[in-house]
Amino acid sequence: MSWTLSECTYDAAKVVQHGNKYLIGNGYMGFRGTLDECRKESLVGCMLAGLYDQVGNKWREPINAPNGLYLRIKGTSDENIETHAQSLDIRIAEFERATTWRMSEGSVSLKSKRFACADDVHLMVARYELSSTVDCEVEIESGIDADVWDINGPHLKSVRCDNEDGVLIVKATTHELEKDVCVCERFDIMCKNNVLVKETVRRHDLQNIRHSIIKLKANEVVKITKYVSVYTELDVSDVEKASVESVNKAVVVGYSELHRKHKIVWEKRWNEADVEIKGDVEAQFAIRYSLYHLMIIAPMHSDRLSIAARGLSGQVYKGAIFWDTEIFMIPFFTQVFPEVSRSLLNFRAITLDGAKRKASEYGFEGAFFAWESQETGDDACSHFNVTDVFTNRPLRTYFRDKQVHISADIVYAIWSYYEQTGDWKFIQNIGARIVFECAKFFLSYLHYKPMKRRYEVLDVTGPDEYHERIHNNAYTNRMIKHVFDVTLIICNRLDEDNCYKLLDKTGLSDDVKLIQDISERLFVPPILEETLLVEQFNGYFTLEDISLEQLRSRILDKTEYLGGGNGIATNTQILKQADVILMLQLFNEEYSDEVCKRNWEYYEPRTEHGSSLSSCVYAIQAAKLGQAEWAYKYFMKTATIDLTGESKQFIGPLYIGGTHPVANGGAWMAVVNGFAGMKVNTHGIALKPHLPKHWSCISFKARWHEQCVEIEIDHEKVIFIALAINTETVGLSVGDQKLVCEPGECVECLYGMENCVEQGK
Amino acid sequence: MSWTLSECTYDAAKVVQHGNKYLIGNGYMGFRGTLDECRKESLVGCMLAGLYDQVGNKWREPINAPNGLYLRIKGTSDENIETHAQSLDIRIAEFERATTWRMSEGSVSLKSKRFACADDVHLMVARYELSSTVDCEVEIESGIDADVWDINGPHLKSVRCDNEDGVLIVKATTHELEKDVCVCERFDIMCKNNVLVKETVRRHDLQNIRHSIIKLKANEVVKITKYVSVYTELDVSDVEKASVESVNKAVVVGYSELHRKHKIVWEKRWNEADVEIKGDVEAQFAIRYSLYHLMIIAPMHSDRLSIAARGLSGQVYKGAIFWDTEIFMIPFFTQVFPEVSRSLLNFRAITLDGAKRKASEYGFEGAFFAWESQETGDDACSHFNVTDVFTNRPLRTYFRDKQVHISADIVYAIWSYYEQTGDWKFIQNIGARIVFECAKFFLSYLHYKPMKRRYEVLDVTGPDEYHERIHNNAYTNRMIKHVFDVTLIICNRLDEDNCYKLLDKTGLSDDVKLIQDISERLFVPPILEETLLVEQFNGYFTLEDISLEQLRSRILDKTEYLGGGNGIATNTQILKQADVILMLQLFNEEYSDEVCKRNWEYYEPRTEHGSSLSSCVYAIQAAKLGQAEWAYKYFMKTATIDLTGESKQFIGPLYIGGTHPVANGGAWMAVVNGFAGMKVNTHGIALKPHLPKHWSCISFKARWHEQCVEIEIDHEKVIFIALAINTETVGLSVGDQKLVCEPGECVECLYGMENCVEQGK
Repeated sequence: MSWTLSECTYDAAKVVQHGNKYLIGNGYMGFRGTLDECRKESLVGCMLAGLYDQVGNKWREPINAPNGLYLRIKGTSDENIETHAQSLDIRIAEFERATTWRMSEGSVSLKSKRFACADDVHLMVARYELSSTVDCEVEIESGIDADVWDINGPHLKSVRCDNEDGVLIVKATTHELEKDVCVCERFDIMCKNNVLVKETVRRHDLQNIRHSIIKLKANEVVKITKYVSVYTELDVSDVEKASVESVNKAVVVGYSELHRKHKIVWEKRWNEADVEIKGDVEAQFAIRYSLYHLMIIAPMHSDRLSIAARGLSGQVYKGAIFWDTEIFMIPFFTQVFPEVSRSLLNFRAITLDGAKRKASEYGFEGAFFAWESQETGDDACSHFNVTDVFTNRPLRTYFRDKQVHISADIVYAIWSYYEQTGDWKFIQNIGARIVFECAKFFLSYLHYKPMKRRYEVLDVTGPDEYHERIHNNAYTNRMIKHVFDVTLIICNRLDEDNCYKLLDKTGLSDDVKLIQDISERLFVPPILEETLLVEQFNGYFTLEDISLEQLRSRILDKTEYLGGGNGIATNTQILKQADVILMLQLFNEEYSDEVCKRNWEYYEPRTEHGSSLSSCVYAIQAAKLGQAEWAYKYFMKTATIDLTGESKQFIGPLYIGGTHPVANGGAWMAVVNGFAGMKVNTHGIALKPHLPKHWSCISFKARWHEQCVEIEIDHEKVIFIALAINTETVGLSVGDQKLVCEPGECVECLYGMENCVEQGK
Repeated sequence: MSWTLSECTYDAAKVVQHGNKYLIGNGYMGFRGTLDECRKESLVGCMLAGLYDQVGNKWREPINAPNGLYLRIKGTSDENIETHAQSLDIRIAEFERATTWRMSEGSVSLKSKRFACADDVHLMVARYELSSTVDCEVEIESGIDADVWDINGPHLKSVRCDNEDGVLIVKATTHELEKDVCVCERFDIMCKNNVLVKETVRRHDLQNIRHSIIKLKANEVVKITKYVSVYTELDVSDVEKASVESVNKAVVVGYSELHRKHKIVWEKRWNEADVEIKGDVEAQFAIRYSLYHLMIIAPMHSDRLSIAARGLSGQVYKGAIFWDTEIFMIPFFTQVFPEVSRSLLNFRAITLDGAKRKASEYGFEGAFFAWESQETGDDACSHFNVTDVFTNRPLRTYFRDKQVHISADIVYAIWSYYEQTGDWKFIQNIGARIVFECAKFFLSYLHYKPMKRRYEVLDVTGPDEYHERIHNNAYTNRMIKHVFDVTLIICNRLDEDNCYKLLDKTGLSDDVKLIQDISERLFVPPILEETLLVEQFNGYFTLEDISLEQLRSRILDKTEYLGGGNGIATNTQILKQADVILMLQLFNEEYSDEVCKRNWEYYEPRTEHGSSLSSCVYAIQAAKLGQAEWAYKYFMKTATIDLTGESKQFIGPLYIGGTHPVANGGAWMAVVNGFAGMKVNTHGIALKPHLPKHWSCISFKARWHEQCVEIEIDHEKVIFIALAINTETVGLSVGDQKLVCEPGECVECLYGMENCVEQGK
């Protein structure tokens, strides 16, 4: 089974797409899949997680570090490439390229590999193999390129270039927060004395470059290793010292050892995360590629970071954290790396003050989490987030001020994390406060409608952003009810003293009765009697009901925004993404299969999928309903989005390309929550499998309350193997069959039948 | 003092503007000020009040009757005009023209006058004087031109042309309601036998034309009279019979007697309505011209009609009735022709079912009156009322579904009519039901905000239509509070039985307590402590604060709509029209002069006056504050709008020209409510004069509870003369001075001083 993605030709037109597709990373930084010699025109990027900068009035975004992996052979260019191949080994997150250039005499080849160390996130290491078909001397330019790609930059000022004992140093400072950033590079030529003719270091504008003239003998390989360290003032106060030490230490440890350690980490990761799909090579690679992307961007080294909408692939969407993380990524992490989920949720605790500021900015109380959260929790989104292609004017959008569901999404993720992990300590210490602040926010947001004797939530934007400023969005209202329900549960479970203190701190002390009332009488658009449909929001069914084809025939400019005040989808029933269907998924147990089916069939043809959050939801629901063909189609769309590059790249003049962590998480959900039908709650692990016909078997690990179970599902049976190190019995179910699995035990369950055969340990 | 408007040259470019400016009418029909020989290209129109038609999916609009006043001298055209003059005598509503054309030999002159009979609204009469500088024969084409101007027509089908005993007849039927319409014409040549050479009647497509060859002797005048009658099936079932009879009777009565009767009616009207302004010829003519326009369109003959936004000047705005009538025209009529006010309000009773249908269409109860009401009360406005000039796509506008204040405006007018006239019978029989249905509507519309312990009105559009879908619009909320207050007063005053029945009928029986609570706790944006400003709606002050010049500099297309989803005013503080200022005017007694002043100064530079409803409000408030210069400027802008033609003519591709009854009413308000500072309520007539310096004196009649008082105001004193036929003492006040006036008594009051001198009867 292949773990490798590859190309065997060079295509300059694909440089942007390949930057995303061949991305490597380690949670601390992401390095785009560009070639060694590329510069900012090719969108080279070494994006750092969590350090944001703003220049003037431009959008605030994370910074790209100076590129320490820059290397170029003098005399080579796109024009004289003879052969080129590149690949990505997702098993160990290593990028490789091999290129041969025609030179004035003979040709020169460069093979290079790079990885971002998984066990020491400040380090990147590259190994080069250089050769020629003729005896010759080549000049290598290698060093640090601080003239980096930025969307709203340049973000680095006071760029200082140094060369100390062979260590190239670039130190600079960000504009807004004045945080130091330092990149060091060392260059280790094997058998240096035999091949190095001359070495000089020069500064070219923002490049700190070592020019090495190397003697090549025909068809003999010269090996070079490059060590690059990156530190920012968020990590240490003296970034230069830390960075120099780090790179020097790396040289001492050496390439092989660094590589070995890196591989061990990845081996462990795959051991936890892998999802095996037998009978479908394409799907197998796609799901693994999705998991790869989640793992290279997950902040495994820090509990103060979350994951941006485009991961570490670039500054698109301001490097901001969206509700994508909570609803589409945390399900994977909670099952596979629960400590990452805890960190991601902890990020919301850290940014709670920002969320409170935002609520207060709009005249509300409690915590109104940002649509685009950066490190402080303040919303990076402006009220004018899209440009009108017809007038070139900024368009007023309501992403920032009306997507109140985000606070509820975070509560949903917190509670789901708790139900799956049993981590009550997290609720006590961190979660409860967030939940209470969100409840306070919704209390201050909602209204009571006297003539209907019910509470309503007015003027919101739901997940379907094409319809802004709507009333009683089914998704939003149901999620808000959940916030109040969870608040009441936590109130009941917290010991009295703590509860009292926390209620007091949140200003909720006098509101518990009101919350009880709201929980009972908050309007959630009901299942309509005749059609069994749930109306997405008040009046949705009165909107013009056109087909996607009709909608598309009205497009005048292919990058025009379809939503907003005058968007062509705005006044039709065409949705951007799953909205009601997402609600049905999150509250599955409350809706019958028939209801889910009717709604899926109604909303699916009306969904434009203008968001990467959409397809996986349709996949999961289709799988649940046994609609294997639809489920497979939507699963593959989700799982291959970063392979095919077939997603929206522009809204108006705004580039929105990059990787799609939400689709990566969605791909996992489609397999595990969809095809396997897995749901983990306080009672244990429940499955309801519906495999695509041509899949013979899938297997993965599931977790419940610190217990781990290997699960293997084919078309007839499910095999559960509880790890021997488990400490508790795990409750399981397959369809209506309930069973348990003791530590070390293997249980087999024929599904769709009554029999359930237990094998010995 | 001149009562005549005139031109002494011919300008083809002004044909549309003059059609409005020289309009005549009698409430039943309006005849545009075009020339006898004009056809539909020149926007000839004989608009009928109250008969609407829809063709296919086009907008529904009132119909134009076939033009019975068509007359043309063969061989004349724009090109051979030698001299031309035209005038309008507003004292008797008569249009006159005199034109001389160069002919092959000598020249021919036509002088014509026309009026729409004020005492028999189905009749129009024209008198022609024909002469030549040489002996010659001329051919006159005269008859009925059924090929009429329509915006969304043609509205007449089955057009039948007849000639019976010299009566030309055109009978046709409307498309939608299949109502018959008949126009008859008779042509009376004085000394016919001496001058008429030959007469033949021919039909040319949709024209029923009499060709008369007339012998002219040099410099001798031939006089011709034309009688035209118009009937529709709304008037009688046999329109042809009625029409033929009417025109034949008119011939028998004859021109002089018809003209005499017409003049008597107009003399009476001016006797009631005239506002004299001494010391300012221009302002004097402007106010009289405004009153003229109100009187030619007032439905004095019917209690089932109201007045359209463009009066009877054309089909613009679908000939629909807006809240303009209640807030800007009824003040004049209530004072001058109270029976007209009662009819206008009765129109709302007739259309109550339509308003209830509209409420129910949007899921509300009670009566939600139309933004654009036609005869059934259903809303003629679509959800897409404006076209985007950049994409040519329909724009979603919220005039129709969010301007809930209209129901409150109607209640305001009803109550104000009652306070001024004391007509409790109207409240009992008609008004109370409308008020209750409106209260029911607002009950079903509003929400309670638990965390602020107050009622709120969300998602509305106020008078300032550039800001749609706003929350807690000061104007709307205060008006709604007034609806509830009036409801409670009526409940208390109606006898128990009637009240119970009416509450029951409206479904309000159980809601009286709730109404009481809402009346006390409905949020009306307060006067802010530091600035004394009232915020137009939630968040208004956070919008971009730019000048009108800045706004205008952003305009890309001069007809682009400034409001709507993406309008350039939408996200700024620039207003279309008075909003807060209108509220301050309607609830004057609740706001100090200082508050009014601060708000005027804040909002005035931010008002774009994109509506003819705007200037008069600024005029009245400025006058009240003693800002004579500003008041005068805005008064003149309002009073001359139909003289200068300087108003918006297009929104996108949509023609919105015509006359401006709202400005005509506003001009009266500016003088009487503004400069005279008059307010009439249950206690009597109160004045607070602030005359412009150069005005020496103004005088007008005021009415209170069927009593009439002549009022004369100069810079030092007010003289009140109560008519001898009065039956009650009238309570008066000037500033803080209170006095009374017995029937037949004359009272003089020095204002700004303590003295109040009473003269003998």
